[in-house]
Amino acid sequence: RVIHKVLFFPDAQVSCPRQSQPGGCKMRRCKFTHDTTSLSQLKQYLCSAKNTLDLCVYTISCLDLAKTVVELHQKGVVVRILTDKEQMEQTGSQVWYFRSEGIQVRHDNSPYFMHHKFAIIDNSLLINGSFNWTRQAITGNSENLLVTNSRRIVRPYTQEFQRLWDAYEPG
Amino acid sequence: RVIHKVLFFPDAQVSCPRQSQPGGCKMRRCKFTHDTTSLSQLKQYLCSAKNTLDLCVYTISCLDLAKTVVELHQKGVVVRILTDKEQMEQTGSQVWYFRSEGIQVRHDNSPYFMHHKFAIIDNSLLINGSFNWTRQAITGNSENLLVTNSRRIVRPYTQEFQRLWDAYEPG
Ligand SMILES: [Zn+2]
Ligand SMILES: [Zn+2]
Repeated sequence: RVIHKVLFFPDAQVSCPRQSQPGGCKMRRCKFTHDTTSLSQLKQYLCSAKNTLDLCVYTISCLDLAKTVVELHQKGVVVRILTDKEQMEQTGSQVWYFRSEGIQVRHDNSPYFMHHKFAIIDNSLLINGSFNWTRQAITGNSENLLVTNSRRIVRPYTQEFQRLWDAYEPG
Repeated sequence: RVIHKVLFFPDAQVSCPRQSQPGGCKMRRCKFTHDTTSLSQLKQYLCSAKNTLDLCVYTISCLDLAKTVVELHQKGVVVRILTDKEQMEQTGSQVWYFRSEGIQVRHDNSPYFMHHKFAIIDNSLLINGSFNWTRQAITGNSENLLVTNSRRIVRPYTQEFQRLWDAYEPG
């Protein structure tokens, strides 16, 4: 099945983080939305991962997205994360959480930015755009993410991810 | 002809800005490269515009790219630019240059980021990714731009550009 989908942000409402739990959200008066949002669609694509999830994202601070990634790791999906060194060191970065769960996280070694914002699911689905994994990107900024499984588009990104992964091997 | 191309940055060398001039670069000992780079390919795609160029980019400070856009405008290509209000007000922004040449530039009205980094050529070719139009993005950062003429991908972006353009109509 051909996938070409574009997700635009900001979401008008905050997507309920409990929806993706088994049984869904049980709050009687949930203040978050249960409607489809760009965030809920992004999470659905991430959760479609069966084997591997490669993240190459400048800054990752959103807890909802971080938990989604950790849950995939706990289910046995092989997760690899590349991020920016200076952003990693900011308050709010979820890298400490990923590492405490045993997920491999590598980073560049330069003052320049590891500025990519892409994810690759099962080496076959690319999610790429302007969107950093922050709360402001979800509900504040104008952002885009393109989702595609076109092999001619995905393949250069899987190659670039591997190149950077090997280049950023820790000491 | 189907176009699916990915440009990665940083470029190892600075692309010669004079190459695209009529007759090319005439410097005897040009210190820039005349080889193909991601920047030179980006400029080639931009220069393929015959009718319209819509830019929706968070920050635009690179003079080489700005001149490329102004030259298209001078040739009669209809250029529309959407950018971020706070970034526009930074030293180095090329917005003053665009406006002095008669190019329409609009911006958001919020402290949140107009964070897109996409361009649409002739309503049919999309260039989109992590790449802001700055010198650091060309020769310093790890960045990507996806170039595609797939209608299913381009169309949501042309619609989003028009929506933002109308929303950001000045006063
Ligand atoms: Zn809920
Ligand atoms: Zn030269």
